[in-house]
Amino acid sequence: MSLIVTGSIGIDSIESPAGNVDNVLGGSAIYFAAAASFFSPVRLVAAVGEDFPAAFLEDFRHFNVDLAGLEQRQGSKTFRWRGRYHTNMNHRDTVSVELNVLAEKLPPVPGKYQDSEYIFLANTHPAGQIELLEQFPQRKLAVADTMDLWINNEKPTLLKLLQRVDGLVLNNDEAEMLAGDSNVIKAAARITELGPKFVVVKKGEHGVFVTHGGAKIVLPAWPAEAVVDPTGAGDSFAGGMMGYLASTGDLSANGLRKAMACGTIAASFNIESFSLGRLKQISRADIDARLREFSQMLRLDN
Amino acid sequence: MSLIVTGSIGIDSIESPAGNVDNVLGGSAIYFAAAASFFSPVRLVAAVGEDFPAAFLEDFRHFNVDLAGLEQRQGSKTFRWRGRYHTNMNHRDTVSVELNVLAEKLPPVPGKYQDSEYIFLANTHPAGQIELLEQFPQRKLAVADTMDLWINNEKPTLLKLLQRVDGLVLNNDEAEMLAGDSNVIKAAARITELGPKFVVVKKGEHGVFVTHGGAKIVLPAWPAEAVVDPTGAGDSFAGGMMGYLASTGDLSANGLRKAMACGTIAASFNIESFSLGRLKQISRADIDARLREFSQMLRLDN
Repeated sequence: MSLIVTGSIGIDSIESPAGNVDNVLGGSAIYFAAAASFFSPVRLVAAVGEDFPAAFLEDFRHFNVDLAGLEQRQGSKTFRWRGRYHTNMNHRDTVSVELNVLAEKLPPVPGKYQDSEYIFLANTHPAGQIELLEQFPQRKLAVADTMDLWINNEKPTLLKLLQRVDGLVLNNDEAEMLAGDSNVIKAAARITELGPKFVVVKKGEHGVFVTHGGAKIVLPAWPAEAVVDPTGAGDSFAGGMMGYLASTGDLSANGLRKAMACGTIAASFNIESFSLGRLKQISRADIDARLREFSQMLRLDN
Repeated sequence: MSLIVTGSIGIDSIESPAGNVDNVLGGSAIYFAAAASFFSPVRLVAAVGEDFPAAFLEDFRHFNVDLAGLEQRQGSKTFRWRGRYHTNMNHRDTVSVELNVLAEKLPPVPGKYQDSEYIFLANTHPAGQIELLEQFPQRKLAVADTMDLWINNEKPTLLKLLQRVDGLVLNNDEAEMLAGDSNVIKAAARITELGPKFVVVKKGEHGVFVTHGGAKIVLPAWPAEAVVDPTGAGDSFAGGMMGYLASTGDLSANGLRKAMACGTIAASFNIESFSLGRLKQISRADIDARLREFSQMLRLDN
């Protein structure tokens, strides 16, 4: 079943306790698509500038991602981000950011993508997310990511988006901010009252909490010892999650729980290297092996 | 199999967003013993002062706890603690503390308790923990709790204790402090090199991580919406854990994982009220029902 992601492609520079890299491939759509592609073919809609290295594109062809929706815009520059992680890897500072092409008009959705059924709207201005969403009339599942910037500054538009999506993905601070409740369980429940059928609260190294109808899903993160770079953890989580849902079509609470495990494991590989280094080394078999181990770790009834 | 706890009994006053209480029954040994008693009979060794209300004792007889080791010391005063929780319930301030009887000599261990096999040394000065431990020559499993105060000020004595116990229970900040590593997985592994066969890292609302030989156990917390008072969460967790281990004698990694689930569920009930209010209302059947629900929430292979 057809899965599409719209989001950012970036040229990232990262400082982490595990080392520093300059000008590597990043962005929400990139991490999402790479992770999702282990489960399902992925269509990608995003824009880069004329400065975007051809080598990045070649490299990315490793993954099962249709790049017909990738626009290289002449006269524009690619989104750039520099971030710095602190000792415990849980917090980061944005050292510098250049929106560049992200501040311009949205990339066009190719006609052949309009039959997409599984839609992931990576984090961007909610007005853009609504505009993109409406280009997929055959959607079966639409899920959006968001961030504190839009919660604080564009709440009316964000609330309109929430009326239109099936699921929302956000981190725990954002969930508490959006709902005005410091208990994440209550916050997620309140957000479902704003529209989405399910809310996925990402808690980083502490795992994930989901509310879906009356059901609650809670999973720990994979116990990772060797965290090199958490950049893209949330996006690769969402990729694993949506890839699983698109590949099975199982939108029950049980399906969603398995999707959370797929997201957890995709993210656990992603953070083992800078950029897509680790995801390029592994296969679906590696993901399945870790999924089995994770499942065994959580079995309480044997 | 015989389970014993040595620790504090306190008269607590608590300010929480859910309300305030003054002069209620608390202390590590009390919360531990109440929680453990759902799984196994418990022996308790602790001291109170002559000000200790007789009504507290009567009330506590509700639980399956042998109080022959409870010393009411004439001329002494009971440990008192006043704490304040903030909006998100994750952090608390100690408003005032009076050690009183806790600063005096340890309570004697009754002769009939010397055959105890499962020993839990609730948090106190590590020299006292060692002294108590040595009074149980038939021990099969000795587990200690500790805190930042001893890690910072009594490290040589704490290291001696670690050579003598099978397991250590501590929270994530303490684990990082003791091991000098901000990754909790690595920190726990390093602590096992100091002596204990297993290390249980309590992460509060984020669940628990355990390293046991090479095996890792990771469980989320029960998704609690109605947190009234987190006081005693860690002690009731340890009580559920040790109660399960004492009742089954299963010290394998699999047994330890189930013990963590029992601790998680015991703590989840405890935080639903001040003092022992909620634990007094429930039965083993309530714990088992929530355990089944928790197990189902974590099943990924069905």
